[in-house]
Amino acid sequence: MADIRDREYMSRALQLAQQALYSTDPNPRVGCVLVRDDEVVGEGWHQRAGEAHAERHALAQAGARANGATCYVTLEPCSHTGRTGPCAQALIDAGVARVVAAMQDPNPQVAGQGLARLREAGIETEVGLLEDAAKALNPGFVRRMADGLPFVRVKLAMSVDGRTAMASGESQWITGPEAREDVQRLRARSSAVVTGIGTVLTDEPALTVRPHSWQFSAYGPGPVRQPLRVVMDRQLRTPADAAVVRGEGDCLVLGGVETGAQALRDAGAEVMIGQWTPRAVLAELARRGCNEVLVEAGAGLAGAFLVAGCVDELVVYMAPVLLGSEARPLLVLPGIERMAQRQHLNLREMRAIGADLRLSFTLKPR
Amino acid sequence: MADIRDREYMSRALQLAQQALYSTDPNPRVGCVLVRDDEVVGEGWHQRAGEAHAERHALAQAGARANGATCYVTLEPCSHTGRTGPCAQALIDAGVARVVAAMQDPNPQVAGQGLARLREAGIETEVGLLEDAAKALNPGFVRRMADGLPFVRVKLAMSVDGRTAMASGESQWITGPEAREDVQRLRARSSAVVTGIGTVLTDEPALTVRPHSWQFSAYGPGPVRQPLRVVMDRQLRTPADAAVVRGEGDCLVLGGVETGAQALRDAGAEVMIGQWTPRAVLAELARRGCNEVLVEAGAGLAGAFLVAGCVDELVVYMAPVLLGSEARPLLVLPGIERMAQRQHLNLREMRAIGADLRLSFTLKPR
Repeated sequence: MADIRDREYMSRALQLAQQALYSTDPNPRVGCVLVRDDEVVGEGWHQRAGEAHAERHALAQAGARANGATCYVTLEPCSHTGRTGPCAQALIDAGVARVVAAMQDPNPQVAGQGLARLREAGIETEVGLLEDAAKALNPGFVRRMADGLPFVRVKLAMSVDGRTAMASGESQWITGPEAREDVQRLRARSSAVVTGIGTVLTDEPALTVRPHSWQFSAYGPGPVRQPLRVVMDRQLRTPADAAVVRGEGDCLVLGGVETGAQALRDAGAEVMIGQWTPRAVLAELARRGCNEVLVEAGAGLAGAFLVAGCVDELVVYMAPVLLGSEARPLLVLPGIERMAQRQHLNLREMRAIGADLRLSFTLKPR
Repeated sequence: MADIRDREYMSRALQLAQQALYSTDPNPRVGCVLVRDDEVVGEGWHQRAGEAHAERHALAQAGARANGATCYVTLEPCSHTGRTGPCAQALIDAGVARVVAAMQDPNPQVAGQGLARLREAGIETEVGLLEDAAKALNPGFVRRMADGLPFVRVKLAMSVDGRTAMASGESQWITGPEAREDVQRLRARSSAVVTGIGTVLTDEPALTVRPHSWQFSAYGPGPVRQPLRVVMDRQLRTPADAAVVRGEGDCLVLGGVETGAQALRDAGAEVMIGQWTPRAVLAELARRGCNEVLVEAGAGLAGAFLVAGCVDELVVYMAPVLLGSEARPLLVLPGIERMAQRQHLNLREMRAIGADLRLSFTLKPR
């Protein structure tokens, strides 16, 4: 049974890791606290891929006081020599006496090796304290390490009667500015944003994170990290001057034909030709190191991801309006004929956001 | 500025009135507290039409101690000689020194007369303390007195994608037992429940309050008051042995033709033939003294009430499921072609109820 103090320090480490929400991709968000004689002697969090891990920051702050300290870290210290050398060894070298990790490395190939290395050096280790919270910090990284697929979040904006757009396609704006600002947060934490050619042609979205919006750059210097923008566009109808192509950051167009690809490449987009089922798209994105993928698409593409069993979370913004029965449906989900075939969801959170409601659901297997 | 003590006693009077939620129809819910020298000497609430008003109960409890007391009452004391004699006179006769009413009588023809009578007798009066809460207790009574129409609440049960039934009509049950129990509370507080022939034929609902369900009889002896059940059935297709006809309490069938009426009358239903627009139905129900009307119907009838501008509140139970785009819509609301034509709602409340969400909205004029 963990001491109440252990919980407090691990909570602090989780809080530090939270600050990396928008910046560490494709690495996990990790926080670390070093404590000696019930005094915090070092704190740190991993800020950006290629830079120091959380443990390194905390050790640097603690200096000689790391000797004999307890290390609280939200993820098992690494044992491999990556871009920054193994953190497990750094903790050993600093004379840390005890390491408490919230969770093991989610990669089954290396899980436990960092802790084993620490134990071999005579350091007391524990694992599993506030593990659920630690996993929730990195749903995409955990998923990708375990299953080789990203964590997929589908964002939908709808009326109370479950409609996303008028019959004409008009949809700007169903929800209020606060809800749209919240979508910026979803984009900013995602590795990639996936949309369909229908949305590109109708709404002309950039799908970028507004560089000065909200606090995305408050947690570290430098420009905002932009998610990869992915357009599913079989016939390559994306205009070369579309906002989604032109915007800051990278754009990947997934087509089924070569015709038109060169114009998009000339405009700076990457074009891949293939049979792009939802699962194939996700496999490609995982290969590129994508952890969290946000689907911001119309009823057709969002429905196709659901039907393919490729959705982990639904975030629904519900505006207090009725759009009527001629308006477009939330999701094209054909083939459900009986109540017994319905798709069950778990309500995870609900809250008011401006004049709208924000509901988030995780999926139960059908 | 009302004294903090005044607020406390009026809050208590409102709490007493709340106990009448399911029983006083067609009379309003009213509570009363008598206080002398900062001590509660009498309390009461109006329990059932034809029985004593709240003030009478409180006076009976106080006896001689009413002399010189302050009376806190959630509705202006009546000045007319109804079934129980004017309460204003009873307060005068008991020697009450001061009367604080939360609101005037909502009937513009008589508003203020009870208070005037008290003042003429030398009693200090105040009105308007916690007035919004007092009005919220009796939305139907207030509405009917002011506008000659009942307060209309539409109940809907839907999936996250805004669907109320499968394409086949199958709809039992979208929501869980807790949400369905809550619908019992909505029925129990209503004067009438309105449905359509489609719902009668598909779901065969009784639309009664289950006599032993929840606390409807806990606030007074005797059987549960049943709302009037109203079926909108132009062709009189309601089976004479339908649960909605057979159930405890009264059933009114509103048809457009005489054919079939006799069989329904023989089965105990009342049948009225006419041109039953939503507004005509509500006028007839107001004429019968209905305060709150609950519409429990399919997408067509519920939509027709909305289109007619006859809805005051929407109560939506949202189950954490997806029913798909072939399922039936929440509301048949045709003719909304542009975002600018959408129907705006005010979110009044949201809460979890079992595994479902309960959302309630009031309507803004379109």
